[in-house]
Amino acid sequence: MSIRYLTAKLAQQIDEELMSTTGAFSLDQLMELAGLACAQTLATVYSREKYPRVLVCCGPGNQGGDGLVAARHLGMFGYKATIWMPKPGSKEIYQRLKAQCDNMKIQTLAPSSDTDSLRDALARSDVVLDAIFGFSFKPPVRAPFDTALPLISSSGLPIVSVDIPSGWDVEKGNAEGVGLNPDVLISLTAPKEGVRHFAGKHFLGGRFVTKAMEEKFSLSLPAYPGFSQIVELPRAESPQKL
Amino acid sequence: MSIRYLTAKLAQQIDEELMSTTGAFSLDQLMELAGLACAQTLATVYSREKYPRVLVCCGPGNQGGDGLVAARHLGMFGYKATIWMPKPGSKEIYQRLKAQCDNMKIQTLAPSSDTDSLRDALARSDVVLDAIFGFSFKPPVRAPFDTALPLISSSGLPIVSVDIPSGWDVEKGNAEGVGLNPDVLISLTAPKEGVRHFAGKHFLGGRFVTKAMEEKFSLSLPAYPGFSQIVELPRAESPQKL
Repeated sequence: MSIRYLTAKLAQQIDEELMSTTGAFSLDQLMELAGLACAQTLATVYSREKYPRVLVCCGPGNQGGDGLVAARHLGMFGYKATIWMPKPGSKEIYQRLKAQCDNMKIQTLAPSSDTDSLRDALARSDVVLDAIFGFSFKPPVRAPFDTALPLISSSGLPIVSVDIPSGWDVEKGNAEGVGLNPDVLISLTAPKEGVRHFAGKHFLGGRFVTKAMEEKFSLSLPAYPGFSQIVELPRAESPQKL
Repeated sequence: MSIRYLTAKLAQQIDEELMSTTGAFSLDQLMELAGLACAQTLATVYSREKYPRVLVCCGPGNQGGDGLVAARHLGMFGYKATIWMPKPGSKEIYQRLKAQCDNMKIQTLAPSSDTDSLRDALARSDVVLDAIFGFSFKPPVRAPFDTALPLISSSGLPIVSVDIPSGWDVEKGNAEGVGLNPDVLISLTAPKEGVRHFAGKHFLGGRFVTKAMEEKFSLSLPAYPGFSQIVELPRAESPQKL
């Protein structure tokens, strides 16, 4: 049995079940483990010696929350993280996660409708963590992200995307060609339909899915090694032309 | 500068600061990272191939919550965990953490005022995770733990203790001789005064203390390797006679 790629609807359903009274997880818990997996994936591929400066790009939703958690862990790992979060989400949890980063002296660029600060920050960074859009993204890409994505792409920096590369359709992938082309992808819980032919290094994180849930949704997840929070997936056999 | 060993009061103060509006951490986050560190420590020393059955002994307080999180992660790592939690804490978080273990089909022994079920469970286990008492423990050891500690000791099983071996005075150690004698200790945030001369393998977890807090409290924490959530401390120079 090969791993199951999730539709947007199924990803949503699994997320809801994890946080239902049945799954019993809090958003705080899931985001902590997801963000840790993102940070560990980046650190696995891009050493802090060669890539010390990480620009963490955060969207307005839960994906942005994962990014904030990852930024904090990256700070703990000795990276110099900087956060670009132009549209901070209104949920109380984002304020707490941001305060935790503030306490680590991780700089957050001032929210802005233009992308000048992003351009400057890219010039001072070695690698980008893309936590802009997640599995609930629906096109089109709205401002300021519509100008941000091409800026990030043209920076030439290596990109690690969380769950679904920003700008990609969750199910159809980068068919429109407006999305980022990351070098590394960290899928959370299970990979999404749109990244089936992703050509780069592909990791899986979110080691909190029970056997029962895995069976219920026929996920066929790979075995994580030892006590690791991430597992590398085999390269796609017929990579998407990028 | 050598690492600082914390008094009970200082440990309490750091814990409060982490969860204050300044520290901005939720109990869910801290417990998740602490419990993960506990599970990873056990898995580092006792492989699931040779020690597949872990009895997780949980006290009624936050330490017991760390134990529940650790039990879930151990289940994820492929261990067969069983929980003994005779006096479940009343906080809502413990019910959620227990439900997460239930979902993993991790058995929790029925709460009981006697220790018969503990005795049986010890006979079917390969290693014990001691999450009974933490840094807020004050003697004497009350029922049913007063009979449980000698039972656990006499089982001859290897013991991994969380933060402070159960029955030890947080500052004076095992002066009274009523505590467990663990093989492995995982201190959280920073080690406590009472374990200064602990003779076994000693790990540190809780990689969420900011540089600012470390300096404020003169903790002199060791560097964690890479993106690990635990770090092994050097053996005590003048181990306590056990």
